[in-house]
Amino acid sequence: VSFTEHLSNVVNAVDGAIACSLMGFDGISVETFQSPRLKSGEVDLQSAWVEYANVLGQLNAQVEVLKTGRVSEISVNTEKLVTVIRMVTKEYFVVVALTAQANYGKARYALRLAAPKLALEL
Amino acid sequence: VSFTEHLSNVVNAVDGAIACSLMGFDGISVETFQSPRLKSGEVDLQSAWVEYANVLGQLNAQVEVLKTGRVSEISVNTEKLVTVIRMVTKEYFVVVALTAQANYGKARYALRLAAPKLALEL
Repeated sequence: VSFTEHLSNVVNAVDGAIACSLMGFDGISVETFQSPRLKSGEVDLQSAWVEYANVLGQLNAQVEVLKTGRVSEISVNTEKLVTVIRMVTKEYFVVVALTAQANYGKARYALRLAAPKLALEL
Repeated sequence: VSFTEHLSNVVNAVDGAIACSLMGFDGISVETFQSPRLKSGEVDLQSAWVEYANVLGQLNAQVEVLKTGRVSEISVNTEKLVTVIRMVTKEYFVVVALTAQANYGKARYALRLAAPKLALEL
């Protein structure tokens, strides 16, 4: 089983999911899976990736709160892009990028299932 | 028009909204409106408020990212509670607390409408 399988499971389970990444708290992506279902007419993927990179670039201060234990998730959103970010281990987190219309509750649920599976692979 | 009117409009527009607060970046609440519709059987309000207070207590690092301009919202979630936080002015933000089942997109939309109205009153 590879990281990609768990990341693709998240993207495939959530309508409007653009991509899912396993990342280190150092900001380096271990693995990223991009949705193959999103057509160019459906969402501007190029612009979504620019937003996504921008959001991840601003994560440094945010991920600290995830390490406190009580908070299980954070989101950092722009007008067009919603992310859900969840701890995997003390050094890694998983993040899914969604269109504004996507099902947020479903994305939370998919990440909650994926996180322990990813942790087992690390 | 008072702050309470704008805050209650947010709570009333979103099923599963528990409370909406106008807060300073110093962590002091200017005004809070709690949903009168939530019955004790529907959600454990007391426990929701403990979660809410906990989340707000961990906001310090998070709100910094809101001031950068590109990011329009952040959320800080526990298993049972979802929040959506949006800038109002450089000194104030608005936050809505939701049950895990609430409509996140609707909450984002309601805050987007409320923020400029609250800003006009400050």
